[in-house]
Amino acid sequence: MDLKEVRTTARERMKGFCKVCPVCDGRACAGEVPGMGGLGTASSFKDNVIALAERRLNMRLMHDAVDPDTSVELFGKTLGIPVFAAPIGGVSFNMGGEISEEEYVDGVLDGCRELGILGCTGDGVPPFISESGFAAITRLGGAGIPFIKPWEDKELFEKLDKAVATGADVVGMDIDAAGLITLKKMGRPVSPKPVAKLAEIIKRYPAKFIVKGVMTPDEARLARDAGAAGIVVSNHGGRVLDHTPGVARVLPGVAAAVKGEIAVIADGGVRTGTDVLKMLALGADAVMIGRPISVAVVGGLKEGVVAYLEQVRAQLTQAMVMTGTAKASGVDKGILFEG
Amino acid sequence: MDLKEVRTTARERMKGFCKVCPVCDGRACAGEVPGMGGLGTASSFKDNVIALAERRLNMRLMHDAVDPDTSVELFGKTLGIPVFAAPIGGVSFNMGGEISEEEYVDGVLDGCRELGILGCTGDGVPPFISESGFAAITRLGGAGIPFIKPWEDKELFEKLDKAVATGADVVGMDIDAAGLITLKKMGRPVSPKPVAKLAEIIKRYPAKFIVKGVMTPDEARLARDAGAAGIVVSNHGGRVLDHTPGVARVLPGVAAAVKGEIAVIADGGVRTGTDVLKMLALGADAVMIGRPISVAVVGGLKEGVVAYLEQVRAQLTQAMVMTGTAKASGVDKGILFEG
Amino acid sequence: MDLKEVRTTARERMKGFCKVCPVCDGRACAGEVPGMGGLGTASSFKDNVIALAERRLNMRLMHDAVDPDTSVELFGKTLGIPVFAAPIGGVSFNMGGEISEEEYVDGVLDGCRELGILGCTGDGVPPFISESGFAAITRLGGAGIPFIKPWEDKELFEKLDKAVATGADVVGMDIDAAGLITLKKMGRPVSPKPVAKLAEIIKRYPAKFIVKGVMTPDEARLARDAGAAGIVVSNHGGRVLDHTPGVARVLPGVAAAVKGEIAVIADGGVRTGTDVLKMLALGADAVMIGRPISVAVVGGLKEGVVAYLEQVRAQLTQAMVMTGTAKASGVDKGILFEG
Amino acid sequence: MDLKEVRTTARERMKGFCKVCPVCDGRACAGEVPGMGGLGTASSFKDNVIALAERRLNMRLMHDAVDPDTSVELFGKTLGIPVFAAPIGGVSFNMGGEISEEEYVDGVLDGCRELGILGCTGDGVPPFISESGFAAITRLGGAGIPFIKPWEDKELFEKLDKAVATGADVVGMDIDAAGLITLKKMGRPVSPKPVAKLAEIIKRYPAKFIVKGVMTPDEARLARDAGAAGIVVSNHGGRVLDHTPGVARVLPGVAAAVKGEIAVIADGGVRTGTDVLKMLALGADAVMIGRPISVAVVGGLKEGVVAYLEQVRAQLTQAMVMTGTAKASGVDKGILFEG
Repeated sequence: MDLKEVRTTARERMKGFCKVCPVCDGRACAGEVPGMGGLGTASSFKDNVIALAERRLNMRLMHDAVDPDTSVELFGKTLGIPVFAAPIGGVSFNMGGEISEEEYVDGVLDGCRELGILGCTGDGVPPFISESGFAAITRLGGAGIPFIKPWEDKELFEKLDKAVATGADVVGMDIDAAGLITLKKMGRPVSPKPVAKLAEIIKRYPAKFIVKGVMTPDEARLARDAGAAGIVVSNHGGRVLDHTPGVARVLPGVAAAVKGEIAVIADGGVRTGTDVLKMLALGADAVMIGRPISVAVVGGLKEGVVAYLEQVRAQLTQAMVMTGTAKASGVDKGILFEG
Repeated sequence: MDLKEVRTTARERMKGFCKVCPVCDGRACAGEVPGMGGLGTASSFKDNVIALAERRLNMRLMHDAVDPDTSVELFGKTLGIPVFAAPIGGVSFNMGGEISEEEYVDGVLDGCRELGILGCTGDGVPPFISESGFAAITRLGGAGIPFIKPWEDKELFEKLDKAVATGADVVGMDIDAAGLITLKKMGRPVSPKPVAKLAEIIKRYPAKFIVKGVMTPDEARLARDAGAAGIVVSNHGGRVLDHTPGVARVLPGVAAAVKGEIAVIADGGVRTGTDVLKMLALGADAVMIGRPISVAVVGGLKEGVVAYLEQVRAQLTQAMVMTGTAKASGVDKGILFEG
Repeated sequence: MDLKEVRTTARERMKGFCKVCPVCDGRACAGEVPGMGGLGTASSFKDNVIALAERRLNMRLMHDAVDPDTSVELFGKTLGIPVFAAPIGGVSFNMGGEISEEEYVDGVLDGCRELGILGCTGDGVPPFISESGFAAITRLGGAGIPFIKPWEDKELFEKLDKAVATGADVVGMDIDAAGLITLKKMGRPVSPKPVAKLAEIIKRYPAKFIVKGVMTPDEARLARDAGAAGIVVSNHGGRVLDHTPGVARVLPGVAAAVKGEIAVIADGGVRTGTDVLKMLALGADAVMIGRPISVAVVGGLKEGVVAYLEQVRAQLTQAMVMTGTAKASGVDKGILFEG
Repeated sequence: MDLKEVRTTARERMKGFCKVCPVCDGRACAGEVPGMGGLGTASSFKDNVIALAERRLNMRLMHDAVDPDTSVELFGKTLGIPVFAAPIGGVSFNMGGEISEEEYVDGVLDGCRELGILGCTGDGVPPFISESGFAAITRLGGAGIPFIKPWEDKELFEKLDKAVATGADVVGMDIDAAGLITLKKMGRPVSPKPVAKLAEIIKRYPAKFIVKGVMTPDEARLARDAGAAGIVVSNHGGRVLDHTPGVARVLPGVAAAVKGEIAVIADGGVRTGTDVLKMLALGADAVMIGRPISVAVVGGLKEGVVAYLEQVRAQLTQAMVMTGTAKASGVDKGILFEG
């Protein structure tokens, strides 16, 4: 399937929700929450893209990294490329509803499977969001990572129980959703989790636990101390707090705090394989990709996702050749230009 | 009342005076004085907004600041949120005159009262500006802060006498209005006040005295030495001198000079509750909000002001949750990203 | 005469040569030489404006500088404001020719006289450019400063002889015109002047000599050593070399080299009285204003110039009040914000 | 031939491939590969132009550099100006094909000859690209530099054999083409060359060897160690890797590593003679010019190239006069403004 066609279809299907811009940078959709935009002035969304764009790569051609290895080992699994599909839900109110929540989740997870990677599934107030995800992961024998929002105990544990029951051996919680006052108003409070509470939650389940929404070195250490197997450095796509720094801006500090102890996944502004390589050079073990995958699945279901991810893999491969990077699991910081 | 509707009404009523832009940043109205714009190139107005936007917040979610306290104590009063409505007058020549000066002042003061905060009232050459303010404050039993321009002695003392007679126990002077050559040409000179003169004025009245228009650490100390109970760090919305720095840019230095001794109020570019939190982190005890409240009152009178301030309170609450800030009266500088 | 009307008339008369933009910043006319633009990408012209705009002023209101003195002493004369009209010629090919060279020069010089300052006159290949200037200065008994281009000896001395014969006791040479290859192609070579040559030229005349086109501290010292009474820090309005720094960017270094020994005049991007004050704070003794005066004289002859200069004086006065500056001859560097 | 006319003709002939913008900066054609644009977001192309524009020149006029010498000695030859035409091929798929590959190459090489400089010729999958170049150089008795892509051994040596057979005593390889995955997909792999391999290639031929595509000091040293007579600091016009730094940004470091040992040629963003002078001041011995020469030859064949290069020479001459630079072979770093 041709990616250009996927994008054209997505542009039609997401009309009023996403313009499918040449570069997805948060300008056209500023303030559109619900929708695909960033909160308020969208400065958090925009800075995800800007902070990545500010970093430049040293080009090197005198080496033998002719056939680079794009795979990485993470959570005991081998991933074809160091990429996860981010947990995103709410197709009807965020993307226009031209495809169903089930089609969305299936397309993402099946597409990821083709590339040898894992898709994450989302959560929300309407039960069908998490249920669609659980069903898809169950169908794939656990090949997916269910993310649950930081609800209060009863709802949280009910959902985590279901998440683990899918067969998934890695689960996650996006604590960055805690600022969604809308949920609280709907009588479904979410909240920050003190480290002791987090440790209690993590201990309760046999699965590897990912904490999403870490933006500072101190909280990276807290997540590690609470028993997390990995963190996602993320400002939730700029949808929960205006004026946070872009992820690429905080990543080096966060990674320095816990790198090698737990997995560090960077989520914010990644659009291309070149962006993936930059995030690895900045300290990530892998990245999450959000909006571009949403566009791909709305525009072409599984085939759209595959087309997009194959492009990412090709770009990553080329960028590795052009920087002399032999393995995605061992990216040298020195490929970043400092000047 | 819906804030979107308030803004739509304001856009109609302020036609030719204010475009009620998505972000009120000084670009569309550059040079429009009288009107709602900044003087000259409007660089002082613009930099108020830019200097705030440049500061970014560290997002933290592993804590128990679930129900943050937005109140602060200032001038012996408890304020529901750390916000004052700025002293603004001249509805007819600055805003189009679709509502009267009395309606304006009443809307602002009554709206503030709903949120448990205080509105300030303005001053000018036409007597009805200050008189409208005095009347409204008197009606509310002193619940408001009358601001007087830096006139020469006779007019100054006459007006301050009336200000105190309203029952207000806090009064202010916006010395930043001293550059208004127009007033001098109309035979109504305003002027800077040397510290000895300022001390004499302050001593004359039993009320707590606020000096508005302090932009440097040295003048913050002078204001304190003259007996001021508080200062407003302000460039008068960029309407009296082109090319001053934005308030958020000078605030840390000014606050460092007098913090804890007198109240430090930041006035410049605050649009949202997130901006309020940034100003507190930069050293302010509270903020003043100008143009957005003018738009709210012109668009919806008291109800417009309430709708706007409730939004500010909700944004401030969410921003406090998302940064782990438990109390508005004790904001940690560490919530600001340094990188 | 109303300045708005002057600008409207100028916009009509200069059609195709100058758009009389809200802020004269070099963008609309990039590359228009001849015309009113900067050479090439106009980056030198633009940076004159940008470098000034980047500097910000500390606002101070606790002082007694209520009636600031805008006058300065320079070259043994008292100037009402620290401003010279820059030497500009070629009305026909640069400005559209709707007024004559004589009208232009007379308007500038007579207008300056009203404000108690001096206008400079220009030079070029067609003899009427310098002749118009000489005639006007002669008519005013020497009240003007004739500038001669850096021709080769014969033409240079003939013109300087005439310049001195006007009665002017200050004359100048714009060595920055030396890059005008067009002149050389027309068989009228101009060239840089080594310091020995410059000293010889200066010694030959009894008048005080101003060297215009100094952009580095080392050449400021050379000009002083050659006997110059003053220098003009100038990139010739960005018309002779693309990609020079803006004048406000090099001024502090240049001024530090010779301040107090010879007069330092800053020429580049000054549009308002606030800009004048910034240049003084950056180390200038006075400024030159170019394009805005051209627009004023084309739009309103002498009256246009007077209207413009009165506005500059009013802005300068207000900016002095708002920064606590009592005398234009003693501007404190501390009025510039460093942050 | 008038350059304006050349550009107008080029705009018609390159319709859909190049807009012939006022400043060729990579914005209008972002992502157009094939075509004339930069890869992806075109940030590498854009930064070539931006990095040059950021550097500013010190203007100096008190000296005797009245008739500067623009020539340089390189590879045992005297060049009239320190400029090479970059190796560019593929007129049909990159430029619209309104002129033939032969007309293109002949125009470039003949035009360069008029100015006393050398044109380079390109390479690609269709044989006529390199063959056109070899034919033109042979016709000129070796007056040109053939560049070969980094093919695998058989194709590489076959082409280099032919290159040397043209009579050229300088040949080059653009290793920066190694990332062109398209070539690999067409069964014609190109690849990076480890230093030992590079040494083997260079040793095999009697010609002086230029390695194009060096962007770091370490690879500059490797190229020198491998026996290269010169390097071209180049990101291939931003067409092989998005997000590299602009050439002017890395040039000082690269030049410092090998200056004086081997020739350093800077290729990226040079549009004017002023840009040439900046590159020399930043450490280059000469520059390459790409797109502007393509536009010139498509718009006016040999005459177009001559008109463009004469303009570059005139601009370079003027910039040398205005900075006090007597010889292009000895440019003082001090002509760059540091501030």
